[in-house]
Amino acid sequence: MLVRDIAEALGAKLDGDGEIAIDRLVHPARAERPSDLAVAISPQAAAALAQTKAQAVLVAAAAPPPRSFSAVIAITEPRMALARLTALFDPGPPHERGIHPTAVIAPDVKLGADVSIGAYTTIGPRSRIGAGTTIMPQVTIGADVTVGAQGLFHSGVRIGHDCRIGDRVIVHSNAVIGADGFSFAPDLMSASAFTAAVAVQRVHSLGNVEIGDDVEIGACSTIDRATLESTRIGRGSKIDDHVHIGHNVSIGESCILCGMVGISGSVVMGDRVRLGGGVGVGDHIRIGDQAVVAAGSGVGSDVAPGAFVSGYPAQPHARSVEQHLYLGRQKRLHDKVAAMASRLDELERIVGRTGKK
Amino acid sequence: MLVRDIAEALGAKLDGDGEIAIDRLVHPARAERPSDLAVAISPQAAAALAQTKAQAVLVAAAAPPPRSFSAVIAITEPRMALARLTALFDPGPPHERGIHPTAVIAPDVKLGADVSIGAYTTIGPRSRIGAGTTIMPQVTIGADVTVGAQGLFHSGVRIGHDCRIGDRVIVHSNAVIGADGFSFAPDLMSASAFTAAVAVQRVHSLGNVEIGDDVEIGACSTIDRATLESTRIGRGSKIDDHVHIGHNVSIGESCILCGMVGISGSVVMGDRVRLGGGVGVGDHIRIGDQAVVAAGSGVGSDVAPGAFVSGYPAQPHARSVEQHLYLGRQKRLHDKVAAMASRLDELERIVGRTGKK
Amino acid sequence: MLVRDIAEALGAKLDGDGEIAIDRLVHPARAERPSDLAVAISPQAAAALAQTKAQAVLVAAAAPPPRSFSAVIAITEPRMALARLTALFDPGPPHERGIHPTAVIAPDVKLGADVSIGAYTTIGPRSRIGAGTTIMPQVTIGADVTVGAQGLFHSGVRIGHDCRIGDRVIVHSNAVIGADGFSFAPDLMSASAFTAAVAVQRVHSLGNVEIGDDVEIGACSTIDRATLESTRIGRGSKIDDHVHIGHNVSIGESCILCGMVGISGSVVMGDRVRLGGGVGVGDHIRIGDQAVVAAGSGVGSDVAPGAFVSGYPAQPHARSVEQHLYLGRQKRLHDKVAAMASRLDELERIVGRTGKK
Repeated sequence: MLVRDIAEALGAKLDGDGEIAIDRLVHPARAERPSDLAVAISPQAAAALAQTKAQAVLVAAAAPPPRSFSAVIAITEPRMALARLTALFDPGPPHERGIHPTAVIAPDVKLGADVSIGAYTTIGPRSRIGAGTTIMPQVTIGADVTVGAQGLFHSGVRIGHDCRIGDRVIVHSNAVIGADGFSFAPDLMSASAFTAAVAVQRVHSLGNVEIGDDVEIGACSTIDRATLESTRIGRGSKIDDHVHIGHNVSIGESCILCGMVGISGSVVMGDRVRLGGGVGVGDHIRIGDQAVVAAGSGVGSDVAPGAFVSGYPAQPHARSVEQHLYLGRQKRLHDKVAAMASRLDELERIVGRTGKK
Repeated sequence: MLVRDIAEALGAKLDGDGEIAIDRLVHPARAERPSDLAVAISPQAAAALAQTKAQAVLVAAAAPPPRSFSAVIAITEPRMALARLTALFDPGPPHERGIHPTAVIAPDVKLGADVSIGAYTTIGPRSRIGAGTTIMPQVTIGADVTVGAQGLFHSGVRIGHDCRIGDRVIVHSNAVIGADGFSFAPDLMSASAFTAAVAVQRVHSLGNVEIGDDVEIGACSTIDRATLESTRIGRGSKIDDHVHIGHNVSIGESCILCGMVGISGSVVMGDRVRLGGGVGVGDHIRIGDQAVVAAGSGVGSDVAPGAFVSGYPAQPHARSVEQHLYLGRQKRLHDKVAAMASRLDELERIVGRTGKK
Repeated sequence: MLVRDIAEALGAKLDGDGEIAIDRLVHPARAERPSDLAVAISPQAAAALAQTKAQAVLVAAAAPPPRSFSAVIAITEPRMALARLTALFDPGPPHERGIHPTAVIAPDVKLGADVSIGAYTTIGPRSRIGAGTTIMPQVTIGADVTVGAQGLFHSGVRIGHDCRIGDRVIVHSNAVIGADGFSFAPDLMSASAFTAAVAVQRVHSLGNVEIGDDVEIGACSTIDRATLESTRIGRGSKIDDHVHIGHNVSIGESCILCGMVGISGSVVMGDRVRLGGGVGVGDHIRIGDQAVVAAGSGVGSDVAPGAFVSGYPAQPHARSVEQHLYLGRQKRLHDKVAAMASRLDELERIVGRTGKK
């Protein structure tokens, strides 16, 4: 790819020789050949420009390079540029094209054009895989599953029977879609009397999981199937590693769930909800559109649209900050109250009463 | 299955035509054919009854349907009814019967009657699988493992050597039973002086994991093997997704561990203990029978039988609630103390002393 | 192994017959044959010595056995002794030697001497596996991966393309090394205006993961690849189950990360850092050498070398303890302030002013 083409794809300003061919993006300190583009968007990387062996560099327009280079691409929105740039240079994980002879695919599975299926992957009866989708080795896809087009399913992904996955969905290794929900009768967590005489019965999961287009699901994440209906992940939502989504949950579009988020059963979330790392959400809770929950919070009650909450239990963030501030002043307050008590004693002595009750 | 048979299995009252054949349970809004049974136990689902195309409906006796249907099953204990109803209609995950030709099973493995083993599953020497157990594709079972009867092991489950699993155990995808414990010498977390000169040594895990009958283990959960003895999960205990159980832990019978619970090494739990989602328990802690720990709590000391604790560190729930209440009143208290200080100043001025020390 | 050899390997004192051959380490209560060595280091196990059938016992020198045995090994540092003892008796997981015929190994993969590769494992083009390394069944290793010598990779481990793993590395089942980082543009968690008009773009992960010698990684843990560079785990670091390490993170040498720790992107940790179970660390945070973070803490700002922090957000542990102490005295303080207010009222009445403003 030519420097000129990269600058154009990024909508960036180019100074110098646009004809240099680039085959690798590197930190300035690691550049070693003419075809390396040194990416110096962060201040740390920019500091390494003085010593780089690179001939072509990419910098933030606000931080011009400390010396001249054969080619300088200057971008204005660093993170957006990084997204476009890395997309340009990502060939995806190397894999063999086509259907590996060891894949065990039920005879009635429908495969779209240009589907790749890796070694030892198994696909159950009546399932369909959309055009251009890549399934890496050792994936298991159950019966009656529908997978859309242009998806990427990494090794060890498990998709249970009846689940439906949209187009351009990426699922990382060892994620599990469609395990049974964790549901018993009686409702054990709230049961006031759980004695040895109580026979615990399983509520079976007869529903499925439905995942919209452009969803990404992280490694070792789990999305449980619904009891009768569907557990739903809306279009464009992004889910990090180790995230758990319980049965009957409905997540809206373009939500962001950071690592180790846990969503209990029957939670309903709107669109563009953002949950920081390690957030837990109790069952049946509703979280409105564009709400934000700070990392590490535990959500025990509904969250209004647009709200920013934090803490355990989660409350409006401003209140958490205020409480935290006063928490740090407890000793001072105790000392102040003790001093005032002494002054009261003295006043009462002078005025002629003991005052102590 | 006939409506009459369903009503009988649920011990429920039936009005109307008991001869209707049912092959599917659906939300009232999704009913489309005569063989659909519309399940309207929740208020939301009941509200959809007015418009349903279903002919047969199942309702809570306390909430009779808004219009007449061909058949009405009325139940009194909704959650128990849901458990029995879903059990009636759960055929389990579709799978091929018998032993798949690609399964790699050591010659001396003993398989009970009617065992199913999926594609690419491997089973090590001297292991035994009980009658009627189903092992889905791509499971690995090590050497000298004993698995009971009527179990269900989903794809990607890993069972390490020497582990013992009871009857009717369900393990969901990508759960790991029998990985090594996380144990080093010196005891690094409590070591006061951990310098570069300290050589970290591994305490090897020579023990195993023993799991009782009727246990269920969620997707991506891990149960580590013991150092010398057994990590134990008692009969009937239910473990959700992403739960970690450390080495040497002993968990009693009929315990409930919700998603993302983490149990450190050598914890001992009694029977019917319930841990909410995300609870962490420190090592060597003892939790008594029927104790309950609220979601998100961190347990740093022993919990008495029957106690209900919450918070970080966990304490009796009533105390957590009280502390939380006062936390919300900190600003008011500071303001009140400041006003009282002014009044003290004024009194001291009047009485003729400064009082300020 | 003879009792004499064991005592010598532990540097321990031996009383009695050193010629007894030992083939198993057991709890005193489970000893049943002459070749059992009853390990009674813990007080609980020592209490069982009175009734044991063992002839050879291992005890803490500080707690001599209650009666005579054929052989008594007395150790002084219990945990170190346990490490050495379990290492002596650990044959590792049973597995077939050599390359299983079903393994799918690209023709140009370079395998060192004495490598074992289990059934259905796949290894991509140009990868290298060092001498003496054991790869259990159903592992996937991508293209261009380098794995060092004497390693042990359990079933279900996924290693993505381009990753580099040192010598003597142990990775437990279903751990994922080299999944893509969770990174989008704009920076969604901090974006103040995330409306439907914002097009979310993926920042692709073109970097890799590099893992030093003697690292251990627990079951179901995930280490994401870097955007352009490497996510790094330093030599000798030990990582428990369900740990998540985000993209671009750098972890020093001999760090200890307990179960369910979550490290956000671009965190930099020094050497010998210890993180208790369930700790979360926010992105771009720096944690200095030998710092300790208590279990369950949420780290929201940099941690100085050698610091001991706890709480949410994490702060110096002494301050957390102080705050917690005062938290428990809130009611008493409120009551005291209320009583003082009454005394003020009374004083003001006597002095002749109302004082209430």
